[in-house]
Amino acid sequence: MTSIEMIVAARARLHGHGRRTPLLTSPFLDEIAGRRVYVKAECLQHTGSFKFRGGWSALSGLAPDLRKRGVIAFSSGNHAQGVALAARRHDAPCVIIMPSDAPRLKIDNTRAFGAEVVLYDRAKEDRDAIGARLSEERGLTLVRPFDEPLVIAGQGTVGLEIAEQAEEEGIASAEVLVPCGGGGLSSGVALALEATAPGFTLRTCEPEHFDDTARSLAAGKVVRNAALAGSICDAIITPEPGRITLPILERLAGAGLVVTDEEALRAMALAFKRLKLVIEPGGAVALAAALFHGDRLNGGTAIAVASGGNVDTDLFTEALRRFG
Amino acid sequence: MTSIEMIVAARARLHGHGRRTPLLTSPFLDEIAGRRVYVKAECLQHTGSFKFRGGWSALSGLAPDLRKRGVIAFSSGNHAQGVALAARRHDAPCVIIMPSDAPRLKIDNTRAFGAEVVLYDRAKEDRDAIGARLSEERGLTLVRPFDEPLVIAGQGTVGLEIAEQAEEEGIASAEVLVPCGGGGLSSGVALALEATAPGFTLRTCEPEHFDDTARSLAAGKVVRNAALAGSICDAIITPEPGRITLPILERLAGAGLVVTDEEALRAMALAFKRLKLVIEPGGAVALAAALFHGDRLNGGTAIAVASGGNVDTDLFTEALRRFG
Repeated sequence: MTSIEMIVAARARLHGHGRRTPLLTSPFLDEIAGRRVYVKAECLQHTGSFKFRGGWSALSGLAPDLRKRGVIAFSSGNHAQGVALAARRHDAPCVIIMPSDAPRLKIDNTRAFGAEVVLYDRAKEDRDAIGARLSEERGLTLVRPFDEPLVIAGQGTVGLEIAEQAEEEGIASAEVLVPCGGGGLSSGVALALEATAPGFTLRTCEPEHFDDTARSLAAGKVVRNAALAGSICDAIITPEPGRITLPILERLAGAGLVVTDEEALRAMALAFKRLKLVIEPGGAVALAAALFHGDRLNGGTAIAVASGGNVDTDLFTEALRRFG
Repeated sequence: MTSIEMIVAARARLHGHGRRTPLLTSPFLDEIAGRRVYVKAECLQHTGSFKFRGGWSALSGLAPDLRKRGVIAFSSGNHAQGVALAARRHDAPCVIIMPSDAPRLKIDNTRAFGAEVVLYDRAKEDRDAIGARLSEERGLTLVRPFDEPLVIAGQGTVGLEIAEQAEEEGIASAEVLVPCGGGGLSSGVALALEATAPGFTLRTCEPEHFDDTARSLAAGKVVRNAALAGSICDAIITPEPGRITLPILERLAGAGLVVTDEEALRAMALAFKRLKLVIEPGGAVALAAALFHGDRLNGGTAIAVASGGNVDTDLFTEALRRFG
């Protein structure tokens, strides 16, 4: 289990390697939200998302002999890039397994960060079997995207920074809104806030129809999503909450928040105009919740994590065309 | 004249009110440039540009009785917004004089920051006469956009931060590339670097055909631009270098760098993709110089100031469409 001590240790290992991303504001956003809104600009993190923190925590926390053999991860998105760059900076071999129909750009980016990308055919091949074979042959350690204590500890460093930055800004209480897929970021941030900013409440944010965490929190048990595709918020779509992350959220998080794809696009256009930030749809759901679902919030101040900025040109242009 | 003591004092007054903007990097940009490139993301400053620093310095440095009467500025762009927000946060009245054909968005933004916007007809009215009348009637103090020691001192705080952040990153020598209009930012940064990072050389960056500073530095005298319109880099187009700023640059800056509009758009698209930053064309000329004019640089490391992010949706979309 991830403890606050593990998060503090992850932060010490991250020091000088990760970015302490800024907490940004705009009076225009405050006016729309009807409250003070802070945005934790994690899209400015290395590789364009918070996932670098978890990747770094996993690599730096691994025993040296295991690290030397290398790591493996299944991902076509932000987790792949975060693990790949963290591995390269540790001089550790890294294999990323991706479906062969993953976007070319994501494959190229992951290779550019130094990883060996192994492609598999979704229709014909078993991803897990390929991973197991490679792991065994080469002694690679699997880095899970969220159900992994070291990864949760790494993502929790976002929460330590929020607590510090909030204190610098004189914020005594707030709701902290976090985009939620498998729950690695939200559970890590919740643990960090519990220890360092107990006046803050964490709220998970998800896209409509893919709100497995909100429904699981409401039901008190794991509830799966009906579908696995069909949202523009691809970075935070998972079948169901994690087995490690959900119990943490059940203990610490408030009711989950849900936004529409259109609200996510609106939030992206506003972040462009008012914050000069590029946020991807999945990364914009927390800002969207702060701006458009204020009636569901309790506290006076909202702190929204903008968790990533890896968005295609076409989708970003669409957000600007429709709502810019 | 602006001194390093004035810049240090401006920074003390700015503390807790302005943002210490981050210094960002991307291995992809390094590869294009063939060198290490750092980007000082001043587009994340309040009001979306460094101009807030100069505005804050001017307002906070004014005698209290003068500040109470208020300030006045001529600008339809970033200077207007910087002065307006600084004035509002000082509870000081603020009048901004703009041409009546200024973009609606800029007028609205300046009003939203609390300023009284006075519009004049470019063809029929004398801007300076209107300003003089209002100043006399109300006792307003004029805040010049660049030829004003307090404003230069405020912009110079960017240089103090660059020197500090470079030391944190272990950068011993670098060329610091700065977008240059009237020269307020570049002369302020040059003075700050002279005192705090003497191994660094400042280089001004301008758009092609509007390179009055580069040509003035080369000629050893003031050279005007032939035209005043026709570049997409509107934020940094001035008739000629400032009377206060040019002598500072003559003493401290290297040869000026010049980029094309297309290179500025390319730099904007790369900042979108690799840094998750929104940069306006004029704010992107320094990054463009670092990326595409490396043959004109001497040092191994380039630090490019991204001076602002106030770009219209249409122009940003064009940059992404052509070069994204």
